Amino acid sequence: PDWKQVEEDGEEKLQRQFKFANFAEALAFTNRVGDLAEDEGHHPALLTEYGKVTVTWWTHKIGGLHRNDFICAAKTDALFEER
Amino acid sequence: PDWKQVEEDGEEKLQRQFKFANFAEALAFTNRVGDLAEDEGHHPALLTEYGKVTVTWWTHKIGGLHRNDFICAAKTDALFEER
Repeated sequence: PDWKQVEEDGEEKLQRQFKFANFAEALAFTNRVGDLAEDEGHHPALLTEYGKVTVTWWTHKIGGLHRNDFICAAKTDALFEER
Repeated sequence: PDWKQVEEDGEEKLQRQFKFANFAEALAFTNRVGDLAEDEGHHPALLTEYGKVTVTWWTHKIGGLHRNDFICAAKTDALFEER
């Protein structure tokens, strides 16, 4: 429910913003999601700001959302819960 | 010359996109700029994607650009040159 489906540059994407206490915690989460991306061989856009990270998953090759994007979104949520 | 002045949410910002060979190198640069941000006590927006990082500096408190944003932009360039 926390993921929004957004359209950017004509492509459907899954996007969620995660909140943190400060910049360092936000950047640590960015790195955790980055590790997940490397493990999956699938790479999101990660916007790191003071106290928040906005994660966007989509599949550029198909210009939109693949089942794998929803799986990666769920895995991102799990990383957030585990932190 | 590589930094553009952009307006977002009514605030003037300095923005530059840096290119890398892959996701891991992009994320490594995000971390280097993150360390700079912590050292400076001034925090940019860092958009990490496959092969690129978009860095945006501005001073939210004044709703635009302070001399320090230009200094941080120059320091970001130096990190890129040193990598």
